[in-house]
Amino acid sequence: MAGSSFGTIFKLVTFGESHGQVIGGIIEGVPSNIEIDLSMIQDELNKRKPGQSKITSPRKENDTVELLSGLMEGKTTGAPIGFTIKNQNQKSADYSHLKNTYRPSHADLTYEKKYGIRDYRGGGRSSARETACRVVAGAIAKQILKDTGITFTTYVNQIGPLKIDKLKNYSTEEIERNLCRCPDEQLASQMEDLILDVKSKGDTVGGCIQGIINNVPIGLGEPIFDKLNAELGKAMLSINAVKGFEIGSGFSASSMFGSEHNDTINSDLSTSTNNSGGVQGGISNGMPITYKVGFKPVATLMKDQKSIDKDGQEVTIQGKGRHDPCVLPRAVPIVEAMAAIVILDFFLRQKANSIN
Amino acid sequence: MAGSSFGTIFKLVTFGESHGQVIGGIIEGVPSNIEIDLSMIQDELNKRKPGQSKITSPRKENDTVELLSGLMEGKTTGAPIGFTIKNQNQKSADYSHLKNTYRPSHADLTYEKKYGIRDYRGGGRSSARETACRVVAGAIAKQILKDTGITFTTYVNQIGPLKIDKLKNYSTEEIERNLCRCPDEQLASQMEDLILDVKSKGDTVGGCIQGIINNVPIGLGEPIFDKLNAELGKAMLSINAVKGFEIGSGFSASSMFGSEHNDTINSDLSTSTNNSGGVQGGISNGMPITYKVGFKPVATLMKDQKSIDKDGQEVTIQGKGRHDPCVLPRAVPIVEAMAAIVILDFFLRQKANSIN
Amino acid sequence: MAGSSFGTIFKLVTFGESHGQVIGGIIEGVPSNIEIDLSMIQDELNKRKPGQSKITSPRKENDTVELLSGLMEGKTTGAPIGFTIKNQNQKSADYSHLKNTYRPSHADLTYEKKYGIRDYRGGGRSSARETACRVVAGAIAKQILKDTGITFTTYVNQIGPLKIDKLKNYSTEEIERNLCRCPDEQLASQMEDLILDVKSKGDTVGGCIQGIINNVPIGLGEPIFDKLNAELGKAMLSINAVKGFEIGSGFSASSMFGSEHNDTINSDLSTSTNNSGGVQGGISNGMPITYKVGFKPVATLMKDQKSIDKDGQEVTIQGKGRHDPCVLPRAVPIVEAMAAIVILDFFLRQKANSIN
Amino acid sequence: MAGSSFGTIFKLVTFGESHGQVIGGIIEGVPSNIEIDLSMIQDELNKRKPGQSKITSPRKENDTVELLSGLMEGKTTGAPIGFTIKNQNQKSADYSHLKNTYRPSHADLTYEKKYGIRDYRGGGRSSARETACRVVAGAIAKQILKDTGITFTTYVNQIGPLKIDKLKNYSTEEIERNLCRCPDEQLASQMEDLILDVKSKGDTVGGCIQGIINNVPIGLGEPIFDKLNAELGKAMLSINAVKGFEIGSGFSASSMFGSEHNDTINSDLSTSTNNSGGVQGGISNGMPITYKVGFKPVATLMKDQKSIDKDGQEVTIQGKGRHDPCVLPRAVPIVEAMAAIVILDFFLRQKANSIN
Repeated sequence: MAGSSFGTIFKLVTFGESHGQVIGGIIEGVPSNIEIDLSMIQDELNKRKPGQSKITSPRKENDTVELLSGLMEGKTTGAPIGFTIKNQNQKSADYSHLKNTYRPSHADLTYEKKYGIRDYRGGGRSSARETACRVVAGAIAKQILKDTGITFTTYVNQIGPLKIDKLKNYSTEEIERNLCRCPDEQLASQMEDLILDVKSKGDTVGGCIQGIINNVPIGLGEPIFDKLNAELGKAMLSINAVKGFEIGSGFSASSMFGSEHNDTINSDLSTSTNNSGGVQGGISNGMPITYKVGFKPVATLMKDQKSIDKDGQEVTIQGKGRHDPCVLPRAVPIVEAMAAIVILDFFLRQKANSIN
Repeated sequence: MAGSSFGTIFKLVTFGESHGQVIGGIIEGVPSNIEIDLSMIQDELNKRKPGQSKITSPRKENDTVELLSGLMEGKTTGAPIGFTIKNQNQKSADYSHLKNTYRPSHADLTYEKKYGIRDYRGGGRSSARETACRVVAGAIAKQILKDTGITFTTYVNQIGPLKIDKLKNYSTEEIERNLCRCPDEQLASQMEDLILDVKSKGDTVGGCIQGIINNVPIGLGEPIFDKLNAELGKAMLSINAVKGFEIGSGFSASSMFGSEHNDTINSDLSTSTNNSGGVQGGISNGMPITYKVGFKPVATLMKDQKSIDKDGQEVTIQGKGRHDPCVLPRAVPIVEAMAAIVILDFFLRQKANSIN
Repeated sequence: MAGSSFGTIFKLVTFGESHGQVIGGIIEGVPSNIEIDLSMIQDELNKRKPGQSKITSPRKENDTVELLSGLMEGKTTGAPIGFTIKNQNQKSADYSHLKNTYRPSHADLTYEKKYGIRDYRGGGRSSARETACRVVAGAIAKQILKDTGITFTTYVNQIGPLKIDKLKNYSTEEIERNLCRCPDEQLASQMEDLILDVKSKGDTVGGCIQGIINNVPIGLGEPIFDKLNAELGKAMLSINAVKGFEIGSGFSASSMFGSEHNDTINSDLSTSTNNSGGVQGGISNGMPITYKVGFKPVATLMKDQKSIDKDGQEVTIQGKGRHDPCVLPRAVPIVEAMAAIVILDFFLRQKANSIN
Repeated sequence: MAGSSFGTIFKLVTFGESHGQVIGGIIEGVPSNIEIDLSMIQDELNKRKPGQSKITSPRKENDTVELLSGLMEGKTTGAPIGFTIKNQNQKSADYSHLKNTYRPSHADLTYEKKYGIRDYRGGGRSSARETACRVVAGAIAKQILKDTGITFTTYVNQIGPLKIDKLKNYSTEEIERNLCRCPDEQLASQMEDLILDVKSKGDTVGGCIQGIINNVPIGLGEPIFDKLNAELGKAMLSINAVKGFEIGSGFSASSMFGSEHNDTINSDLSTSTNNSGGVQGGISNGMPITYKVGFKPVATLMKDQKSIDKDGQEVTIQGKGRHDPCVLPRAVPIVEAMAAIVILDFFLRQKANSIN
């Protein structure tokens, strides 16, 4: 049953496979009369696109988005926004050797068994190429949220063993000034070296992304099941390669005592600490929403791996194609897009909580 | 806007506040002709109820569930199952001092600001008492799943700094033989001591729960957004006090290389390792689904805390009421219930993926 | 799969069978801080309850609703409102002869084949008793809408061949002053005679209800599929025994020319005619929303009917139990309740169409 | 809030305005491994397209659909099917005079007031051009249903005062052999004359479509709110210009007695009459599902009409553009498409009602 939709009021549905003609989506529930800057959407897509630097996949794709509806003279009309992004530069031949084999830690086996049929070219529907559509919707969500003052800070805070220890609100400039999107320049330089080293060995490496959402008004998030942290967690866990999600203190809270973990409330309603990560009882409390997303290393290696074919026979899979040694730098705009979609959706849901 | 519903086909809606007459819910999408054992539901509720041991809240509640519909001579009819659980032994007077104050790291402030009105008695709708309804639905889900062979193993694997390092499939007996629901007997004894020590200080402590879902057929989970891990994560993150969720290798994957993380596929379709945690591309691969859920320490302390009142004035909140020094033991059936609801829902969704 | 929920933001889920202990429901998405008058809900239920007059079923049920949650000192808190209505005065023995037979034009056969099991007592889940829950939700919806100025006029405009030709906005007093809820006194008297005659013959008779929704602001209804008329139509067609629905000119439009059907717009945005029935392009245009709902005659007759049993053998079904010769008078509050639920839901949906 | 989605499991979302570059949609929940014949989809679109005969709009559009995803070597993969249809031959200049005026009985005023902005070119999102997307989804639904034996008969049974009195299962050939899609040849010839006469006067005329769904298995439709007739009614009422919907006996049931209306059940589970229209208690009973859909006359006239402009000033609107004197012939494939979508959706929902 259907699972390609996300959101309750501001709703994204996506379609497309990595080696089809286009990928695309429809955004429903777009508030009307909002000016949309197409170039800003493209900027976000450019942060995600392959081939952007020496530490990403060498595949070249322009990832140019076309908005097909829902706009009139540059403004949203309230009608759904349909959009497409052309697939370019696919080399389906790179994948023909995978028609009958299942790659380790990929979705080849599970798609084939689930559906009884599989588009094996470039991962088909399971390819992370789909996330470009999320970036489009997220960029539009951010533009809609502009006047609310809500902003998003998202950066790489870990690659392999290299990690930033302290949570901080960095500027976009600080995040974007190196290829890793890690605002600690020194660490970023080490990360770059690590990625290049890993790449040279045909291997890959995982990492983490830290997100901070600022200026969220008190009151977003819907108890009981649709808590802000629960929807945000689902949003992040739906991104390819994500293995973990934390809000605020996260797993570190498990070894803490209540007397150290509780956030004392100040008279201006702020809290002196923010272990809650900006969410209490599933509802934003006005403090920055802080969350962390853990990614596994990319499953496609440029070295030989053992696996099996459709007949259960052992085979050796050779690393082919053009892949990322580390997805973290390209994942930053995806994580931020999902955060924006979640926040806008809750913003609109909260509006429907009152008759006035 | 509404947020008290969970699930797509097997769907739970809950209602009720901790100090109302009853709490309850409606389960929709119940497959017909399944025998339901009421005593098994009650057994699950008993694992969650307060007052079950010296390390839980001394509140006494029988938590007796009444099924009000959807059954005929002990079997499901396909109609919705409505149910209620009486609230007993509330002492609303315990809470009257909280009418005008906001407790730290509680939902008092956020509910009040979101809705402009607040049921302050015992946390009202934000109370973890609501989770009893989830246990009812989960117990029914497990009974419906019985013939599929799918089973659930859920245990406490961390309290404060004390943790089990290795993942293992323990039997219910091993888990239930101590008050902590931690299958490592020696560790459990230390955990019990820790909880009693924390309790004596009026403090609280956090912890983790490990879940394993066995014998899940290949093919459950709906790409793109409704990945099995994404829905499972949302389910867990919607539980009170949860701060983190991991599937399979979780955050440890972030510091790993692809060559160590990839799960090699054997000719029987099993994998030699299970870093994927039983899910690839959002779809179950037939291996055990392994996940971890991190809880913060209970926010209600039995000692004085600083906070503010409605007028922004500083106040001292005294620890009153009857609370848990550590929710982990009582959270085990809640986590397992949510897992069962998610798996049954995906099982039924998968049935709708084919015309035959 | 689940079908006992209605609404998108203001959402009703119901449960219960006619011969169970209670029926009930949960209302989600209730705006907070609205005063709820319990006696007004009861008044609406009294218009629906059996035994209210000589032309309805002689069954006596108090149909007393209990609100179980979501209220604090008489005001909505934004939390779900759970409620129950006790089933009284059932005589399940009246139905034991139906255990193995299928009544003509009832849901006996279809439920049994769909679910493989059937609660045959009083129609079980298929009983129109479920509609009492709709009346509760509708009464709450009307109270929430009070300050918007939106009002509902609903009356019987046809029973058998007797019908009111002209559409008019009658007062509640005019509608309630006779047993038939038909505001044309003379016609109502004939209708009463017809119903009593039909009753004396053990037969039943159909009819129509006319609804008018006044003071609806321009802009409610969501294109494309969730047009106001489409949701209103679904709401009405989901009521037991309904066979037809019309908006505005309805089927009479089929034999009209555009030049006679078009509603000319006046400079105050009103229209000189209202063939549109207050809806254009699925969106309210500020004119009264006018609709008609057609009911078939009650299927339960107090005379012998031929049918078959579970084995396909011909049987004669005797008319037993206590039934309505004509449901129209009791259906008025049900139709109005569904209209109120639909309008409130669209009102809240429209609020979510803007960021401001 | 969003309203451009239809369906629960087999789900269609559409986008696009009549004068944009393309219109299109995404179909989610497509069962996998089904062969799709593209030319059959095109055949259905051709029945809907303008310019197909002298009694339809002279606009010429090829309405060629492009399927963009979800297929592998001609078979569905279970992934969403994205599709587009190019808009050709728009003459936006035809509409520039409407920028500041509201056409009578059109959605101009309601869209402008709802959203505060309006795409006035060709009706924008409110144009019936959107229904081409429904035809695509319906054609795919019919192909998926092929092996179930379920078939659809849909024809014009009334134009203006000319109507077929008796319900009958006509063959596609009988329906398609004249321009009116009315299987009664003699009546069709009169209808054609009527339409040409109306056209010559710059006027338009309404009509009705009769639908019959054959070989539906017992058990489709979900009580309580998602009754088969309720969803089918919503589906039809969401089509532009529809004013009424009837299932089975429809409004005629209102003047009938129970003893004449009840459908006696035969020993083979068929019924001797079919006043129920194939649905009892909201669930299909195995008899043909019969329904009728009433359309108003097209609102765009080729003659002068009075209306107002944005400033509330009276204006005269001249009939311009290229429009249909009667939409009924072109509406047949739209009605049938919606019926197919509803039935397939219920078919898949019913599969999820059982664990086996």
